[in-house]
Amino acid sequence: MSLLVVGSIALDSVETPFGATADALGGSAVFFSHAASILHPVQMVGVVGNDYPLAALETLAGRGVDLTGVVRSTGESFRWKGKYSYDLQNRETLETRLGVFADFNPVIPDAFRGAKYVFLGNIDPVLQHRVLDQIARPSLVACDTMNYWIHGKRQVLLDLLQRIDVLLVNDSEARELSGDWNVYRAARWILRHGPRMVVVKQGVYGAVLVDAEQVFYIPAYPLEEVYDPTGAGDSFAGGFMGYLAQRDDLSAANVRRALVYGAAMGSFAVEQFSVRRFEEIGPAEVTARVREFADLVRFEIEPEPEVSAEG
Amino acid sequence: MSLLVVGSIALDSVETPFGATADALGGSAVFFSHAASILHPVQMVGVVGNDYPLAALETLAGRGVDLTGVVRSTGESFRWKGKYSYDLQNRETLETRLGVFADFNPVIPDAFRGAKYVFLGNIDPVLQHRVLDQIARPSLVACDTMNYWIHGKRQVLLDLLQRIDVLLVNDSEARELSGDWNVYRAARWILRHGPRMVVVKQGVYGAVLVDAEQVFYIPAYPLEEVYDPTGAGDSFAGGFMGYLAQRDDLSAANVRRALVYGAAMGSFAVEQFSVRRFEEIGPAEVTARVREFADLVRFEIEPEPEVSAEG
Repeated sequence: MSLLVVGSIALDSVETPFGATADALGGSAVFFSHAASILHPVQMVGVVGNDYPLAALETLAGRGVDLTGVVRSTGESFRWKGKYSYDLQNRETLETRLGVFADFNPVIPDAFRGAKYVFLGNIDPVLQHRVLDQIARPSLVACDTMNYWIHGKRQVLLDLLQRIDVLLVNDSEARELSGDWNVYRAARWILRHGPRMVVVKQGVYGAVLVDAEQVFYIPAYPLEEVYDPTGAGDSFAGGFMGYLAQRDDLSAANVRRALVYGAAMGSFAVEQFSVRRFEEIGPAEVTARVREFADLVRFEIEPEPEVSAEG
Repeated sequence: MSLLVVGSIALDSVETPFGATADALGGSAVFFSHAASILHPVQMVGVVGNDYPLAALETLAGRGVDLTGVVRSTGESFRWKGKYSYDLQNRETLETRLGVFADFNPVIPDAFRGAKYVFLGNIDPVLQHRVLDQIARPSLVACDTMNYWIHGKRQVLLDLLQRIDVLLVNDSEARELSGDWNVYRAARWILRHGPRMVVVKQGVYGAVLVDAEQVFYIPAYPLEEVYDPTGAGDSFAGGFMGYLAQRDDLSAANVRRALVYGAAMGSFAVEQFSVRRFEEIGPAEVTARVREFADLVRFEIEPEPEVSAEG
């Protein structure tokens, strides 16, 4: 089933305690597509400047990403520069140069308008609305956002929540949006405002899915070495949506599996700078990691628990 | 199999955004025993002042806790006063009055010296050593500690690590002890220094077991209302050790189950102030919650994952 992503295509300069990159591949649409394309073909919509490395686009095309919707504009590509703390838990934005991304107005090519699985990367919710205006009858729309839009375009974002199926946010975004510090109450608040599923990402602790019927928790993969957390959330979304599109199955069991693929892709993303780790892996590595996740949380309840105390 | 706990017996005055208690039952041995005794009889060693409410001890005795090792000394009972932040993630100690606990020198009654499962609550590691000196041939010794001892009695604590099987600490303690901010590397460091299992508790995110063969992650129970986090860790230890003692089975599968019982008890502890929640529940409620944990993390891998992209 067709899978569409609309988001940023950026050049990231990232400094972590383990090294630094300059103008490396980044942006929500790029991380999403690198992860998702291991599982399913992707249709990408975005904008790059005329300074953007063509080889990077060719790599994506070679992975089954349809770039018909990527516009090459005159001007500079979107650039982000950031630095992470010693434990990678905090990051500081050193510089943001929007370049051609400042005037991004997503136009969905005709061939993409029938997309069944749609991921709205973290962009202005006004643009996220415009994307949905151009899509015919999607099976599932998932959406990311950030605190900047939660504060700056709250009503537009609240209207958007009525049009999407899944909101994927991190815990601080869920708290900001709902005004509630308890993640589970925050998730219920979000469910009352539109989406039928909320995925709250909690960084090194994992992610939790909340919907009307269930809560499902998937921990983060236990990594002893993390090089660069940039793009983990978008890679998570890529694994989640890529698996859903591959299976075209929205049963509760399949949604849970899709989240495990999301967690697996998030863990690969942080093992190298930029999208480098995705260039090294294929379906076999992803399947192996999904099996490791199964082992990470597996326990058996004994059929008839005996208890010996009087209580 | 006999289960021994040595730890503090305190009167806690706790303030949270949801209310306050004054001189409520607290202390590591008390939370541990309330949780563990739902699963298995407990032998308790500790000290109280002559102001300690006798009814509280009678309640414990009624739950199958053998109080032969609880000494009643002349003087004030140990009192702790603390206040939690609005989101319960931080707490401030307002007052600590050690009272008779200052001179605590645990004497293990003869009848307890053959204990097979031993939990050393968070007390001076010098005293933890003395407890072990009095125990004949335990099957499993688990131990808690805190940053105060990690800094103040580091060598004594490192020597103790050589004598225990399981260290149960929270993430900040694991980091302080190892000098490594990565929880998994910190756990490996601890394993190299003695214990064969490390359980790192991560508060609202759950807990992780690391040993030579496996990593097992159990999330925290998804609570929308938390009243008082005090005692969650000791209740976790009580569920873990209570289940191990009940089953007397140290297989990997049973250790995983024991951790789920620990997580269940931790979740009950925080649903009310002090040990009140434990007064309301019995084995049935614990079993039901363990089943909810199974549902919280359950996912099935499809037998033959197909992948459609070329990667």
